Amino acid sequence: MTEKKRTTIVLFSGDYDKAMAAYIIANGAAAYDHEVTIFHTFWGLNALRKDEHVPVKKTFMEKMFGKMMPRGADKMGLSRMNMGGIGQKMIKDIMKKHNAMPLPQLIEMAKEQDIKLVGCQMTVDLLGLKHEELLDGVEFAGVAAYLADAEEGNVNLFI
Amino acid sequence: MTEKKRTTIVLFSGDYDKAMAAYIIANGAAAYDHEVTIFHTFWGLNALRKDEHVPVKKTFMEKMFGKMMPRGADKMGLSRMNMGGIGQKMIKDIMKKHNAMPLPQLIEMAKEQDIKLVGCQMTVDLLGLKHEELLDGVEFAGVAAYLADAEEGNVNLFI
Amino acid sequence: MTEKKRTTIVLFSGDYDKAMAAYIIANGAAAYDHEVTIFHTFWGLNALRKDEHVPVKKTFMEKMFGKMMPRGADKMGLSRMNMGGIGQKMIKDIMKKHNAMPLPQLIEMAKEQDIKLVGCQMTVDLLGLKHEELLDGVEFAGVAAYLADAEEGNVNLFI
Repeated sequence: MTEKKRTTIVLFSGDYDKAMAAYIIANGAAAYDHEVTIFHTFWGLNALRKDEHVPVKKTFMEKMFGKMMPRGADKMGLSRMNMGGIGQKMIKDIMKKHNAMPLPQLIEMAKEQDIKLVGCQMTVDLLGLKHEELLDGVEFAGVAAYLADAEEGNVNLFI
Repeated sequence: MTEKKRTTIVLFSGDYDKAMAAYIIANGAAAYDHEVTIFHTFWGLNALRKDEHVPVKKTFMEKMFGKMMPRGADKMGLSRMNMGGIGQKMIKDIMKKHNAMPLPQLIEMAKEQDIKLVGCQMTVDLLGLKHEELLDGVEFAGVAAYLADAEEGNVNLFI
Repeated sequence: MTEKKRTTIVLFSGDYDKAMAAYIIANGAAAYDHEVTIFHTFWGLNALRKDEHVPVKKTFMEKMFGKMMPRGADKMGLSRMNMGGIGQKMIKDIMKKHNAMPLPQLIEMAKEQDIKLVGCQMTVDLLGLKHEELLDGVEFAGVAAYLADAEEGNVNLFI
């Protein structure tokens, strides 16, 4: 009996294009029968935010951070040539023409393929996010859980 | 008989300094007898563009993207302290003084060491690049080929 | 007898939040008994700068670079929402409230846990830094030393 291969990705970045790369690699690995975990930390957590307003109790600072960060995958900007959102719109148009999946659908597909989506609890707290604001099915854990996955891994990436 | 070690790098970034880091690690690994692949995706593809104009048929959008992106490794900017190109010029002057290889030469060396240079076909399409515009010898592939290399790898990096 | 696991991180970034992520993973891995190396290159070297002025002989260009780069971990900015330092101050306040360790303490802890802190000699030269300006206990090496650590590694990251 052979063990399953394993891909573990830290998604630190809050950029649309980097998150796309992370989810394309993750979905590919799952299709090739890897056990896959995406560990979202810092700005990468924005990919997991629900796109509607969720009423939760927050401090003033937490509210401010919440407003300044994109609410959900679809609102994230490009790492370059974003030009106030024009670049992102252009890329999305081109993606549609080429039948490439937009980020929200890539995340949906990841859930269907049983990719483990984890939010880093420490940075969830730092950015003032509440569990209810993040997609259903997301787990919360810390660096110990990440290392347990990563140290047995074949493909480890920090994106 | 022992198997060869393997280094597989995803070059996502279009920054001169990050691409330098990628190619220095890749050339080092090849010198230590690793099988090395650099998988260029998104802005990392700019490192593979020929620096002269190549006449190809493009849509309006593809032409615009082509104009906005640096044509070849030598025209890429720094990830910080670029200051409209001054920082990049400064770094290049200092590199010359220290006999450090500039990026186009590092890429040349990579080809001589049989490092496999791959362009991600999906993002080649998204950015509207044509095969003739990229360096000779570049192969084109997708996430499946990347994973096949990476899952057997010793050193896997996303840069 | 089982071999020790190994975590090897290239810290390329000069951003406070990315360096935090690197040092949190490194300290976690050391706590789980990995042998850990952080290889600082390019802007990541700023995390190792002493925060006081160290009198060394420099060329004009080296002095300029030294002035433009943050002197030490505490002065590094955020990768996003830095807003001229306001974002960084906000994050630090929130971290204090949540008892999260600031970066200079994370580096101190790394030294106590015998994490090997390495400065890339080639980029030390490029940025005009002198050994006396960097924290005591830092070693200096090149890509060959990095690869020797990384190729035996379980967790390899480029941050």
